[in-house]
Amino acid sequence: MGKSFKVGIAGATGYIGSEVMRLLATHPDIEIDWVTSESRAGRKVWEEFPNLLGYVRDEFRTFEPELLSEVDAAIMCLPHGGAMETIKVAVDKYPKVKLVDASGDFRSPRLDKWEAYYKTRHTAREYQSKFVYGFTEFNRDKIKGAQYVANPGCFATSINILLAPFAKHGELVGDVCVSAMTGSSGAGNKPGQTTHHPERGQNVRAYKVLEHQHLVECVPFLEDMHKENEFDLFFVPQSGPWVRGIFATAFIPLNQQHSLATVNEIVKGTYEGEKFIHIVEGTPEMRLVQNTNMAHVTYRAQGDMLVGLCAIDNLVKGGAGQAVQNLNLLLGIEESTGLLNPAGYV
Amino acid sequence: MGKSFKVGIAGATGYIGSEVMRLLATHPDIEIDWVTSESRAGRKVWEEFPNLLGYVRDEFRTFEPELLSEVDAAIMCLPHGGAMETIKVAVDKYPKVKLVDASGDFRSPRLDKWEAYYKTRHTAREYQSKFVYGFTEFNRDKIKGAQYVANPGCFATSINILLAPFAKHGELVGDVCVSAMTGSSGAGNKPGQTTHHPERGQNVRAYKVLEHQHLVECVPFLEDMHKENEFDLFFVPQSGPWVRGIFATAFIPLNQQHSLATVNEIVKGTYEGEKFIHIVEGTPEMRLVQNTNMAHVTYRAQGDMLVGLCAIDNLVKGGAGQAVQNLNLLLGIEESTGLLNPAGYV
Amino acid sequence: MGKSFKVGIAGATGYIGSEVMRLLATHPDIEIDWVTSESRAGRKVWEEFPNLLGYVRDEFRTFEPELLSEVDAAIMCLPHGGAMETIKVAVDKYPKVKLVDASGDFRSPRLDKWEAYYKTRHTAREYQSKFVYGFTEFNRDKIKGAQYVANPGCFATSINILLAPFAKHGELVGDVCVSAMTGSSGAGNKPGQTTHHPERGQNVRAYKVLEHQHLVECVPFLEDMHKENEFDLFFVPQSGPWVRGIFATAFIPLNQQHSLATVNEIVKGTYEGEKFIHIVEGTPEMRLVQNTNMAHVTYRAQGDMLVGLCAIDNLVKGGAGQAVQNLNLLLGIEESTGLLNPAGYV
Amino acid sequence: MGKSFKVGIAGATGYIGSEVMRLLATHPDIEIDWVTSESRAGRKVWEEFPNLLGYVRDEFRTFEPELLSEVDAAIMCLPHGGAMETIKVAVDKYPKVKLVDASGDFRSPRLDKWEAYYKTRHTAREYQSKFVYGFTEFNRDKIKGAQYVANPGCFATSINILLAPFAKHGELVGDVCVSAMTGSSGAGNKPGQTTHHPERGQNVRAYKVLEHQHLVECVPFLEDMHKENEFDLFFVPQSGPWVRGIFATAFIPLNQQHSLATVNEIVKGTYEGEKFIHIVEGTPEMRLVQNTNMAHVTYRAQGDMLVGLCAIDNLVKGGAGQAVQNLNLLLGIEESTGLLNPAGYV
Repeated sequence: MGKSFKVGIAGATGYIGSEVMRLLATHPDIEIDWVTSESRAGRKVWEEFPNLLGYVRDEFRTFEPELLSEVDAAIMCLPHGGAMETIKVAVDKYPKVKLVDASGDFRSPRLDKWEAYYKTRHTAREYQSKFVYGFTEFNRDKIKGAQYVANPGCFATSINILLAPFAKHGELVGDVCVSAMTGSSGAGNKPGQTTHHPERGQNVRAYKVLEHQHLVECVPFLEDMHKENEFDLFFVPQSGPWVRGIFATAFIPLNQQHSLATVNEIVKGTYEGEKFIHIVEGTPEMRLVQNTNMAHVTYRAQGDMLVGLCAIDNLVKGGAGQAVQNLNLLLGIEESTGLLNPAGYV
Repeated sequence: MGKSFKVGIAGATGYIGSEVMRLLATHPDIEIDWVTSESRAGRKVWEEFPNLLGYVRDEFRTFEPELLSEVDAAIMCLPHGGAMETIKVAVDKYPKVKLVDASGDFRSPRLDKWEAYYKTRHTAREYQSKFVYGFTEFNRDKIKGAQYVANPGCFATSINILLAPFAKHGELVGDVCVSAMTGSSGAGNKPGQTTHHPERGQNVRAYKVLEHQHLVECVPFLEDMHKENEFDLFFVPQSGPWVRGIFATAFIPLNQQHSLATVNEIVKGTYEGEKFIHIVEGTPEMRLVQNTNMAHVTYRAQGDMLVGLCAIDNLVKGGAGQAVQNLNLLLGIEESTGLLNPAGYV
Repeated sequence: MGKSFKVGIAGATGYIGSEVMRLLATHPDIEIDWVTSESRAGRKVWEEFPNLLGYVRDEFRTFEPELLSEVDAAIMCLPHGGAMETIKVAVDKYPKVKLVDASGDFRSPRLDKWEAYYKTRHTAREYQSKFVYGFTEFNRDKIKGAQYVANPGCFATSINILLAPFAKHGELVGDVCVSAMTGSSGAGNKPGQTTHHPERGQNVRAYKVLEHQHLVECVPFLEDMHKENEFDLFFVPQSGPWVRGIFATAFIPLNQQHSLATVNEIVKGTYEGEKFIHIVEGTPEMRLVQNTNMAHVTYRAQGDMLVGLCAIDNLVKGGAGQAVQNLNLLLGIEESTGLLNPAGYV
Repeated sequence: MGKSFKVGIAGATGYIGSEVMRLLATHPDIEIDWVTSESRAGRKVWEEFPNLLGYVRDEFRTFEPELLSEVDAAIMCLPHGGAMETIKVAVDKYPKVKLVDASGDFRSPRLDKWEAYYKTRHTAREYQSKFVYGFTEFNRDKIKGAQYVANPGCFATSINILLAPFAKHGELVGDVCVSAMTGSSGAGNKPGQTTHHPERGQNVRAYKVLEHQHLVECVPFLEDMHKENEFDLFFVPQSGPWVRGIFATAFIPLNQQHSLATVNEIVKGTYEGEKFIHIVEGTPEMRLVQNTNMAHVTYRAQGDMLVGLCAIDNLVKGGAGQAVQNLNLLLGIEESTGLLNPAGYV
């Protein structure tokens, strides 16, 4: 309604997609032009999402690449694999349209490893290099000049935030171990046994131990930050009995003796001034970042071991929020626009 | 193992069935002879239920009525409708075998209403009268002499416990209103949207408002207790974000002015000495009955309105526990055998 | 910052107070001028509330009525009783300052009953009539012209929303029964046994059965809406194992035979066009209003009984959000300003 | 009651103490002779613990060492420090009485380190060596012949279970990292801000990072198992939003290249036949051990890194259950007596 940019949301009924709707519903500069859903095409948004009653009046359409002709940009929240065909049409026919892809399709330059982790063939290999990896705080300048952004995964975001300050200085060496627990919304909106409330409501379990697909995006990104990095990343993802939030614990053997003071200097040097990554005293608390684009981090050192702790909301900083942050950059809008609503204290 | 009775469990992988396995696994007088499951036939129990590793070593078989030839009794935990064919074979060919049916098939003598509530045809109408309604505390003597027990529903159990002391005296008159909230295990083990953890984990919702099928068992049972009862029962079932437990609140207009003292006299006269229904001071607390066969109840009166509160575990007193309680009676075992493990305080 | 109005928040470290901080932190027309806390005076807001890091930079001050000289309005979130002395100074010395009092002190004109329910003496009786009861949707016009608003209680808000459409037409007659369950944040920020996580995390209990203090505000408000109303209100408050949200179930005997159609006409006539009260098809779902100022309601009728269901966030529509809604009206700002952030779907 | 042994429970109102009451209430060979509580002396057990109504009829007494004269054994659940004076009287005056101390007082032979971690002076240093460390599965023979057992801490139990199979073979070398998350019951029954439900219900936080006091019992125990062990243990304890259960993740660099096969051989060789430690395929699931004395463990290997996962109930295997397991051994009863109730599947 007189807003500066028109944006479409493909796959808007998934949890990331509906969270993008929530965030863009009140964005001052962006108008939602269309939302798509295969399963609910023709239904009004508020019929399926009563939380958006009064906010998003459109009806769901069926996605087809031609919809790109109507918008300045789109956020693609299609299932993994869904962006591969779209990008081809986009490059050919709608070269001005900016895209943020929330799927895993274009997050990693190691396409052979990608295929191994995702257990599927990559059918748009030559397009991967057109995407900038959307870890905003480290790729900000690249994103500003880019056309296409591959939005990071939720676990990957928490791991990147914890490890990147050291990777940047070539200090990521040896066996790096990460244990992280996520809420159930990370599993998406399709019901299954591990997210069935009676079996999840008081449970903790691990899954994809040492073989989670987010490794294929973190490892190359972190390695490439500095030529002296040489590490193995052992990652144990876990499922906890809450809805939103990731709490990640990293054990980082530094390549020289650091005190907590020098560690904090490195981290402060990296994150000072960032609006969405805050170094906290004491411990991060997951509830204080839920529903927001904020990451809270802290570090402790002992001997040659550094422990890093990070809390994010998996659907916001780990998904829809970071996507909007990247979208803002792509469109030349101030990066934090539409993302500055604080969490409740409880 | 030298135990006195052999019992089979049909439909043992549902939540009621697996809870019956849990309870019978340590029952001193009953040996589990067979367990059946259509979907997991051939698998060991502990492969599917690691909680029973070391307790139940059998493998799941496919249910067929001929299995009744091997046992003294069976607990039928088949989906609603599943018991209708079995009972015919049982009556004809295995007339000595006792049955507790945990389904809704035979809980109500009002078969036309039953068909309306269950939205299905009843195909074993002439067998209904062979079943005693298994609200143990009120039908104890009938159950002892019975062959077949229809085990009450979970909500129905909490409603019966609250209303029966007054129904017994013909004091159930006027508009009786019940609001009750259940945990997610009440929905069974099939994942669906309303039990998908992200959508259930912090949610409350109502369902089947004023038309829940347990009404068709409660109302006739309570009406038939005394000829002066004349009431309408308005029942609002709700789903809460926990796994086990029902908390029920009943508003009961008494047919004469009662003080809390006379109310308590009626209730005490009814429940004193009961091992599984305790009148508590203060409020029932759901956590104090979870995992047990216990019901905690209390009442408050004001003017001509009585409020009753009841907490039970929907899978135990509201299902598997009451079934074992009835099974004990059928087999001539002391009623509380195998059911006397207290809840934790937290 | 060039915002139009300066507002103070007294008692800003309680859950209602900190929620007011959260809402006003991004309000476009209101600047937070001061925040007070007895226990944390001198501390920065973000030291105590890391969720507000970057949003509220002030430090907590000690409350004294003279702070009113600096502001256009204040939201008083002091403990019950705390507003009684302040109002005297405000009337005498700062007659231009508008106040929203979030405590229970001035919500009821029945001061003798008030003293009985609150078990304390009312020391500012002659000031009560200066307050408008802040059930915004029904007292909107009075509030616009008022100086002082008594913000409703959380349970009272859900009860008012359900019953007021009928009370308005003089159709509240007979025994009205309400069962409502609240999350733990309703108990405030002082730890105690009933909110101790191990004892609350899987529990449901009732409390103040038939004698909750919110009755003393609901009953006179509803009675006074129409001279033909003549009802008794039986209210059973309950505590559930979640953090935010109230789910209320009301049983309403109407004084004539209504169909669901005529009921819906009454309700629609009352709430159509309201931004914060939505009539939903199906059932209200608590998660869809959490963190927002929204109420979702629905009704079902059977015979002469009407059932109403309502979901709100106890800290927002039931507290801080309604307070800001009222503050907007007092200051002549559009009523919904700063309150239009939708809930997440999960 | 004709049971073989009389046992007292000191400090029976804490969560470990009340859980011991729950377990001993149905123990076939042990009679509860007395229970003590400073705060509730003179009250009946069921008045404070309605879950034990019908199970424990005694009233709480005030603890004094002379109570030892009445029993064969006692389980001491006094606050840390509370056992130090008692042990002196016990040794002097009641040398036949067996004791299981659930506090941390006598768990570590490194008394200087103990004082540093517990931040208090140890006033019964010369008695420490009279205690056997009660990690039952590894100290079974010592416990059988012992008089006094120091029952392990909850986190320590999960760490010991994961690391001991390797420590036994001298294969615990290098930087061992453990991340573990516990439910709120681990914090005990005194309400505080970090266990206040509104602030815990959806939260995760870390605490005592790298400096938890359980390190002072694990490290010497594991070191002393084999002279070739030489490791640093980095432990990050975390609090999750559930009531019961610990889920622990250990990163173990083995001192030679192991495959998962050889690892499993070591573990199987250690735990095969154990009734309370089960190696599971897939992942441990916390819900499947809740309320029981069971530990579920599994391992994964990659390169030179081994990952171990363990789920226990912090109040049972991590407290009261292991205490009863040790008590059984002290009294010459079969070790698993009274502890063989399986968990529910949900």
